[in-house]
Amino acid sequence: MVPQIRWSHSHSGGYVFHNPGHYDVQPAYKSDGWNTDPWTLVEDAQGRLLGRGSTDDKAPVISWLFVIEAHQKLGLDFPVNLKMCFEGMEESGSEGLDDIIHQEAKAYFKDVDCVCISDNYWLGTNKPCLTYGLRGVSYFHLKVTGPGKDLHSGVFGGTVHEPMTDLIHLMGKLVTPDGKILVPGIMDDVAPVTEAENSLYQGLDFTLNDIYGATESKTTIFDTEREVLMARWRFPSLSLHGVEGAFYNPGDKTVIPAKVIGKFSIRSVPNQEPEKITQLVKDHINAEFAKLNSKNTIDIACSHGGKCWVADVNHWNFVAAANAVQRVFNAKPDYTREGGSIPVTLTFQDALQKNVLLLPMGRSDDGAHSTNEKIDKFNFIEGIKLLSTYLHEVSAQS
Amino acid sequence: MVPQIRWSHSHSGGYVFHNPGHYDVQPAYKSDGWNTDPWTLVEDAQGRLLGRGSTDDKAPVISWLFVIEAHQKLGLDFPVNLKMCFEGMEESGSEGLDDIIHQEAKAYFKDVDCVCISDNYWLGTNKPCLTYGLRGVSYFHLKVTGPGKDLHSGVFGGTVHEPMTDLIHLMGKLVTPDGKILVPGIMDDVAPVTEAENSLYQGLDFTLNDIYGATESKTTIFDTEREVLMARWRFPSLSLHGVEGAFYNPGDKTVIPAKVIGKFSIRSVPNQEPEKITQLVKDHINAEFAKLNSKNTIDIACSHGGKCWVADVNHWNFVAAANAVQRVFNAKPDYTREGGSIPVTLTFQDALQKNVLLLPMGRSDDGAHSTNEKIDKFNFIEGIKLLSTYLHEVSAQS
Repeated sequence: MVPQIRWSHSHSGGYVFHNPGHYDVQPAYKSDGWNTDPWTLVEDAQGRLLGRGSTDDKAPVISWLFVIEAHQKLGLDFPVNLKMCFEGMEESGSEGLDDIIHQEAKAYFKDVDCVCISDNYWLGTNKPCLTYGLRGVSYFHLKVTGPGKDLHSGVFGGTVHEPMTDLIHLMGKLVTPDGKILVPGIMDDVAPVTEAENSLYQGLDFTLNDIYGATESKTTIFDTEREVLMARWRFPSLSLHGVEGAFYNPGDKTVIPAKVIGKFSIRSVPNQEPEKITQLVKDHINAEFAKLNSKNTIDIACSHGGKCWVADVNHWNFVAAANAVQRVFNAKPDYTREGGSIPVTLTFQDALQKNVLLLPMGRSDDGAHSTNEKIDKFNFIEGIKLLSTYLHEVSAQS
Repeated sequence: MVPQIRWSHSHSGGYVFHNPGHYDVQPAYKSDGWNTDPWTLVEDAQGRLLGRGSTDDKAPVISWLFVIEAHQKLGLDFPVNLKMCFEGMEESGSEGLDDIIHQEAKAYFKDVDCVCISDNYWLGTNKPCLTYGLRGVSYFHLKVTGPGKDLHSGVFGGTVHEPMTDLIHLMGKLVTPDGKILVPGIMDDVAPVTEAENSLYQGLDFTLNDIYGATESKTTIFDTEREVLMARWRFPSLSLHGVEGAFYNPGDKTVIPAKVIGKFSIRSVPNQEPEKITQLVKDHINAEFAKLNSKNTIDIACSHGGKCWVADVNHWNFVAAANAVQRVFNAKPDYTREGGSIPVTLTFQDALQKNVLLLPMGRSDDGAHSTNEKIDKFNFIEGIKLLSTYLHEVSAQS
C-alpha cells in the first residue's frame, strides 16, 4: 500500500517524519490542451518545468532525496533523523493509507517528533508560506422519494407531491445567496478570531485580482482581501453541488422525477466536529421537512465527514520553517490555511499527536490537476534549499 | 410529410375530417421487457392483442379503413363525406405537420365541418369517453451564471455568490410543496368552474386507487377523485424538472458549478395564454432575483409555449359521438380532459376553426410507449362499431 524508504542517521536531535507527498499523478492527455507532451519534462524559455506531476507532487518528493544526496556528497552530517513515507495512491483516494498510519503509529512512526508535508502551494506567486490550517468537509445526500416511478408532468402535474419541489424547498433552507449557513447552531462551535490570528492576515501575498482571476469573474461576496481569505480559510461554508435523479441534459423534458437526491457539503473549521454538524443538519432538515406537509419521504445522510485541522504556528516546527524561509528567501513567510481538505494531514495529527507543518514548494498558478502543469525552476531549486535548511533549523530548535 | 388518403362519397351531410392518428410507432426491443416479440401481433388468452403500436395508434388508424370497407361490402351508402390525414412522424415531433395543416386549411380541408381524432385513451378500463380539453405547456429555462469556470468548493466555498444557491432560491419561489403556483397573477385568467362543468365530474370511471396504481404511491395532494382530476385537467400546475450544469452523478463531487440552468414548466388551462404566462414568470423571477442581491447574472427564457385547448361538449359533433357511445356501449360516455398536450389538436382547431373531438378507442392501461403494449379485442371491435356509428350520428345531426 505505502512503499516506504527508511533513511536514518544517528543524531542527537529528534526525528522528523514527513510524508514527502506522492509519486502518483493525475491523468493527462496532450489532447486535453497541453502545449507539450505531458509525460516529458520540458523547460521553457521562462524557466518553467512543464509536465504532469512536476509540481504535484514529484518536485517535492525528489527534493527530499536531493537533500539527502547533497549531504552525502558534501560529507556533511545529516542534521536530524528522518523517516519518510511515499504514497502512490494520493490521486485515487489514498486507499489503506489511514490504516497503515494508525497501525504504525507506535512502530515505524514511534519516535517521530514532528511532521512536515510538502504537497500544497504558495498563496500567490511571489512569497513562500507555511500552512497551518485546513477546513474539514461534511458531504450530505438528501433524498426525497415520492411516486414509484418517474411521472409525466402533463398527466400528474398538480396531483402529487413532487419530490423535486420538496427537495428544492429544503435545499433553499440551507444557505443564503450571500453564503450565510441557515442550519441553526452551526456557528456555535466556530472559534472566535483572536488578535494574534488577525495579525497573520497582514501583508499576505493576495489581492482581490487574484480571486477575480482564479474565478474568472467578479462575483465575490466580499470586497476586502481579509474577508475573502477568512471566508475561504477560517469560516464554514455550505455549497449546493447538484441533484441526482432529476433531468440534467440540455433541452426540454417534462418529467416528474420519482426520487431525487440533493448533494451539498459543509466546509468546517475549528472547533466544529463532523458528528455534531451531521446532527444539526439532520435536525434542521427534518424540522423543515415537517413544515412542508408533504406525503413524500426523506432520508438525509452524511456520506463523508472529515475533520478540520489547525496547527500551532508558535510550535518549534513552524519556527524552524519560518527561520528557514528567512535564510533562503530573505523574507518572512505568509501564514496560510487552505479552504479544502488534505485528509492525511489530520490522520498524522491524530495518529502521532505531533505538530504537523505544511511546507509548500510550488506557486498558486502551477496548475496542479490542470493542463500545462509546471513548477518554476526557481521554486524547485530554492525549494530544495528550503527543505534542507528547514531540517537544520529543526535540529537547532531541539 | 403527411401522406393523404382521400375517400369521399357524395352525400347531403357535411364533411368529417379526421386525423386518424399515425402509423408510426415508438421503438421497441424484446429486451425492454416484452413477453412476446413486439413486432408480431399476438392475441393472448385474455383476448388482448399485444404488439408495438397495437393501441398507439394502429388500431384506430385501421379501424377507419374497416369502417369504409364494411360499407362497401354491405353496399351501404356512406353517411358523410370523409377526409383523412395519416401522419407518419407523430412519435418524432410531427415535423412539418402544422405547416401543411395551415397551408391546406383553405384547400384540402376547405369544406370540413368537424374534426375527430382517435389517438388517446379511456379514463379508466371500463367506460368509453369523449375528450374535450387539453392543458397547454410553457417550458422555461432559468440560467444563473457566475464564475467563468467550475470551482472547487474547498477553495472557493464561502467566497463567491454560487449560481446553484441563487437558482435553488429562485426555483423555491415558483411552487409550494402542495402545488400552489407562486407566480403572482398566474391564476387570474383561469376560467371559473361552472355548474355545467362540475356535473361532468359525476360518475367518472376513476377512483383514487387508479392514481395510486398509476403513480405506485399514495403521495397525491388531494383525497377526492374530483380534486385529483380537476388538478390534472382544468387547473394549471408547475413542475420542477431538473438542473442542467450541476453535479448529477451518484457519489460525491465538491464542485461549485459555474453555470446552472433550472428547468420547469407550467401546464396551462383556459383562458391562460402562453405569452402572458411567460411575461408573468419573467417579471416574478426578475423581482425575486433582485431581492437576492447576488452578483451573478440570470437569464429566463420560454423554450416552448403551447396553448391549452377546450371544446364545446354541447356541439353537435360531441352530441353525435355521445349518441354513438349510447348505441354501441349502451352507456353514457365519460367527458374527460387530458392533463398533457396533443399539439395537433390545437393546430386543427386554430387552422380550421371547427369543433374538434377526441374519441379514444383503447383503455388507460394499454401501455402506449411501454412494454407489452396491447389493445383489448373488445375495444378494437366495439371501437370500429363506435367510429362507424359516430359517422352515422354526425350525418343525423347535420
